[in-house]
Amino acid sequence: MIKNDLFLKALKGETVSRPPVWMMRQAGRFLPEFRALREKYDFFTRCRTPELASEITVQPYRRFGMDAAIIFSDILVVPQAMNINFEMRPNVGPWLENPIRSLKDVEQVIVPEINETLGYVMDAIKLAKEKLNNEVPLIGFAGSPWTILCYCVQGQGSKTFDKAKEFCFTQPIAAHTLLQKITDTTIAYLKEKVKAGVDAVQIFDSWGGMLSPVDYQEFSWKYINQIIEALKDDAPVIAFGKGCWFALEKMANSNVSALGVDWTITPKMARKLIGNKITLQGNLDPTRLLSPPKEIKKLVAKMIDDFGKDKYIVNLGHGILPYTPLDNAKAFIEAVQEYKN
Amino acid sequence: MIKNDLFLKALKGETVSRPPVWMMRQAGRFLPEFRALREKYDFFTRCRTPELASEITVQPYRRFGMDAAIIFSDILVVPQAMNINFEMRPNVGPWLENPIRSLKDVEQVIVPEINETLGYVMDAIKLAKEKLNNEVPLIGFAGSPWTILCYCVQGQGSKTFDKAKEFCFTQPIAAHTLLQKITDTTIAYLKEKVKAGVDAVQIFDSWGGMLSPVDYQEFSWKYINQIIEALKDDAPVIAFGKGCWFALEKMANSNVSALGVDWTITPKMARKLIGNKITLQGNLDPTRLLSPPKEIKKLVAKMIDDFGKDKYIVNLGHGILPYTPLDNAKAFIEAVQEYKN
Repeated sequence: MIKNDLFLKALKGETVSRPPVWMMRQAGRFLPEFRALREKYDFFTRCRTPELASEITVQPYRRFGMDAAIIFSDILVVPQAMNINFEMRPNVGPWLENPIRSLKDVEQVIVPEINETLGYVMDAIKLAKEKLNNEVPLIGFAGSPWTILCYCVQGQGSKTFDKAKEFCFTQPIAAHTLLQKITDTTIAYLKEKVKAGVDAVQIFDSWGGMLSPVDYQEFSWKYINQIIEALKDDAPVIAFGKGCWFALEKMANSNVSALGVDWTITPKMARKLIGNKITLQGNLDPTRLLSPPKEIKKLVAKMIDDFGKDKYIVNLGHGILPYTPLDNAKAFIEAVQEYKN
Repeated sequence: MIKNDLFLKALKGETVSRPPVWMMRQAGRFLPEFRALREKYDFFTRCRTPELASEITVQPYRRFGMDAAIIFSDILVVPQAMNINFEMRPNVGPWLENPIRSLKDVEQVIVPEINETLGYVMDAIKLAKEKLNNEVPLIGFAGSPWTILCYCVQGQGSKTFDKAKEFCFTQPIAAHTLLQKITDTTIAYLKEKVKAGVDAVQIFDSWGGMLSPVDYQEFSWKYINQIIEALKDDAPVIAFGKGCWFALEKMANSNVSALGVDWTITPKMARKLIGNKITLQGNLDPTRLLSPPKEIKKLVAKMIDDFGKDKYIVNLGHGILPYTPLDNAKAFIEAVQEYKN
């Protein structure tokens, strides 16, 4: 049904002629056509207007022809639907006037009806699917419950998310209650996304790497795994935990379809930790896209050799940087398209 | 000669009755007696005034009786001596008006005569040694050349140090020239520190974990290893690379005396990666010092059991947080002092 099914085949672990490629944050600031829209519409307007969100979704595909599109949205639309009123402040980023700091605060948080609160995401997915015309698969996504908790408790971005961790370590009942509410909402949200048309989902655990291996199991993986279990019959699930190399062995013993890894782990070590059953996704350092295009092509070819062409999805190890030159992103994609075994 | 030699014994890999303990950033903001001095003297005045720096050095030892003191200073005094004019700006932190961005900029950087430029550190060490009266050893330190480069090129703190990495990836000759100048200065600086009286030195590679394993070898470890080789006959060297788990195997094949690890690696995995020849130092999550004191004691006891009492130095996995309650820091130290095999 989908013409280019490299991405879906890799998620199933099937043999492919070459690995598929996409880039985290490919629908974003490094594209001039995105920046043109950004000048006219603010952040959450872009997320909430299906015509804009679907347009931004297909922009990178039109330009580079990568093997998957990912719906343009933000992980914070989920807490917004739960009555946690995030804003996007200039020069600050996500901002919450009243961070969650107590069980009483957690009790105010709702598990919403998805289509009433996040119907605009489903509309954007349907429009993006029309625009993509079954050429490549569309990915839906959500933040991990732990990563969402980080923002809800810290109230903004942070180098350490110390307030979020303090909350978990000193008020574990409140923390687990909040994590479960986020998990329940995320499961319902991702199921609706699949119904609306996404072909796979990715869970972004951007701040999992802030936790020790023991704390990660308790405050992050437990909830990601609930999501994987709930979604396993709906669509393939990719789990990406930045800095979470230490949990890869346990993650591989789950029903996840693929594991994303960042650039601080070698392909060899990643394969060693997860065995050969799960597809891996990653992991070029986004800053390496600032190297000359010729060098990027060499790095990508070596990366494919090291991961192996099967059970592998080429990607960056984190989101593409806003000021990445277009020619450099192009070199990254082309290196995969030109790959010969 | 030094009454409490647990720390030095652990560095030599000798059998001890219990492991030694100290805390990274123990001479700092979590102590009320430090905050009292901070109200009167600005940051670099505290670093540059031997009476103040030596006083701040012994403050935590007087209060908690840990097994080592570390000289109060800052890693940026080294680039300052090299004519790179860092200031400390309120609400910003380290700030460089004109960051280094070209080979021409690098050529302006000098390798200074140490006692002319950093004699105040040596004076502080001599005073601190007097105050410590041979009760516990004194540690000297420096930033790793890569970490110093990060600040010199980025010009300030950063979540990604993308400008620093771009500099290395697009102007490798300039980057290596700068790294070598920092390395040469650091070697001379640490040798003077040993002459002035420190009993061991630690190299802080705070931003090594931003690099891929391959890039880490090229831009960070190569230079740290030069320092280790140059210092090996002077004093024991501890190398601490935050987020550098991926390099532990190679680091262990050096003349380093101990390797510091952060909390994202289990003691078991750390031992597995480095074998049994090198002493390990770490690794409680500093945020875990916000847990109740009773829980801290349990976590420390388990940590010692997991690392083993020998070839081990109890520490945090990064610097102590400024708002850590005194009773919690006390519980951390006491848990080690009370440890029974």
